[in-house]
Amino acid sequence: MTGPGAARLALAHVPGLHAYTPGLQPSGPGWVKLNTNECPYPPSPRVAEAILREVGADGASLRLYPDPMSAQVRDAVARLHGVAPANVCIGNGSDDILNLLVRCFCGPAAAAAFTSPSYSLYPVLIGIQDGASARIPMDRGMRLPVREIAASGARILLLTSPNAPTGVGFPNTEIAAVLDSFGGIVVVDEAYAPFARENSACLLAGRPNLVVVRSLSKAYALAGMRVGYALADAGVIGLIDRVRDSYNVSRLAQAAAIAALGDPDYYAGVIGRIRSTRDYHADSWRTRRGWFTYPSQANFIFTEPRESRQSQAKDDGEDKDGGNEKDRHGCRTEH
Amino acid sequence: MTGPGAARLALAHVPGLHAYTPGLQPSGPGWVKLNTNECPYPPSPRVAEAILREVGADGASLRLYPDPMSAQVRDAVARLHGVAPANVCIGNGSDDILNLLVRCFCGPAAAAAFTSPSYSLYPVLIGIQDGASARIPMDRGMRLPVREIAASGARILLLTSPNAPTGVGFPNTEIAAVLDSFGGIVVVDEAYAPFARENSACLLAGRPNLVVVRSLSKAYALAGMRVGYALADAGVIGLIDRVRDSYNVSRLAQAAAIAALGDPDYYAGVIGRIRSTRDYHADSWRTRRGWFTYPSQANFIFTEPRESRQSQAKDDGEDKDGGNEKDRHGCRTEH
Repeated sequence: MTGPGAARLALAHVPGLHAYTPGLQPSGPGWVKLNTNECPYPPSPRVAEAILREVGADGASLRLYPDPMSAQVRDAVARLHGVAPANVCIGNGSDDILNLLVRCFCGPAAAAAFTSPSYSLYPVLIGIQDGASARIPMDRGMRLPVREIAASGARILLLTSPNAPTGVGFPNTEIAAVLDSFGGIVVVDEAYAPFARENSACLLAGRPNLVVVRSLSKAYALAGMRVGYALADAGVIGLIDRVRDSYNVSRLAQAAAIAALGDPDYYAGVIGRIRSTRDYHADSWRTRRGWFTYPSQANFIFTEPRESRQSQAKDDGEDKDGGNEKDRHGCRTEH
Repeated sequence: MTGPGAARLALAHVPGLHAYTPGLQPSGPGWVKLNTNECPYPPSPRVAEAILREVGADGASLRLYPDPMSAQVRDAVARLHGVAPANVCIGNGSDDILNLLVRCFCGPAAAAAFTSPSYSLYPVLIGIQDGASARIPMDRGMRLPVREIAASGARILLLTSPNAPTGVGFPNTEIAAVLDSFGGIVVVDEAYAPFARENSACLLAGRPNLVVVRSLSKAYALAGMRVGYALADAGVIGLIDRVRDSYNVSRLAQAAAIAALGDPDYYAGVIGRIRSTRDYHADSWRTRRGWFTYPSQANFIFTEPRESRQSQAKDDGEDKDGGNEKDRHGCRTEH
């Protein structure tokens, strides 16, 4: 048996998959790193304290497996959102949660829908599952295409809000309209929600088809620790737990998450500073340079020269800020 | 839509899955914990140092994503085993690696084979993939059923060596016989190999259908950090990387792994002590109590009263130490 033999033995769709291309992680100092929307501020000081406490003098606790349920993290998340621990699942980053959701609800005969542009991981996860997919383009007005989503016939919808790379947050009224009209599971991927005016967690009650996915990588400044979570009906959480790796969250990641979630005052300050910086720069690009700039509710902004936007809109034969134009940004959105 | 609706939307096989039941993680002090075969000694002192260095004074580095390739860990593993970094993939524990392998090579029309008894995670992973499975029972002699494996027609074989829960290590001659006669990918799950007389890493050269899976949870005393790895042909590693989560290994897990792999002298001492303790106790049960005790090459022993063994063998109508008896231990093997 030779090298290509391994590919021959793999499931037919696997050799053709393209792995998600993460944003470059430059080594060495001197970078102001904007490409993966990490937090510019350090995490709460309680995080380092909690990690040092868990490691102890000799790292002896590290010889033991972590709590397979991440029970204390579930409890902290449940308190934060006013739900029961049975409505929470903790992941090795929110990408872990997204992967598990696609694994539960998407396959060759069960399509996953996603709006475009959005997080470029979605088609990768659907591809791994050999799943059918429904890509639903948004026009430049970036309104949620509620009717197209409802008509997609998909089992699961993956929706980034606030969206990347535009920073546009979808109002709860539009998300509620999707929840009422779409017949599948609605995953609202809220990695950037702590920077937004509103979020969809308050829509959970009475809507068992809603899954809210959160990350500690952005607002909590813990991208390096890998913690994310899902909020959902206990039935959906039970499905995720069936396909989840038991020990998906390390002891130190659990300790870091508990410490971070326990310091809301610190993070209110961090989030306030990021919002101010964001609004200052968005305003600067919009009014002083005259560039088209989406109203961002995330920790980044999307801006482009009017000429570029107008020429693209003209190529599409459409109005520059609306219409049914297909996504022309070609933007890959990196988390 | 109500709760059961979520199950109705899931892929048909998902609601019926049974999650892997991990070994109980008791809280509080006073336990001598044997149920998941963790290391009784702490990790190398360099591990705690490396973690503290990475965390720094304020945890600022944790705000950045980890290296998606775990490149330095791959390099360290490659040096340890005398292979190229392209022959290495790092996982969030070896369970992550096993899951990815099953995802690449097993599905409804591509069976995964596993010997029984062995690690009880395998049928769980196969079930998540809705995969066909071939359970190949071993007799009480615990010799590898080479012919049955070759005849299974499976795409992938999952083999624990040293095996759990028996502690029996399969000799390389038997593993080579499987590699030569079985037409699929052979995964040798060597979580306990550092405690064994030999291991299958030396069989890798020229055998692209062999995947050796290792864990840092047992001999390296890092179960709480979640690090494992695969050694294989670069073609197989490329397939795993296509389905792997980019950020599967946290910054601190990478730092801990590099530190641990860089302190072979410390671990030689730990492994030597564990082997001595194991051999002392195995001998004690075998000779002083007269119990049947498998020759363990792991960090645990399997022993049972002769009467129990004889009565079970009689129930099976077979010789007590051989024959084609089906697995009667009913043992769940926990990692």
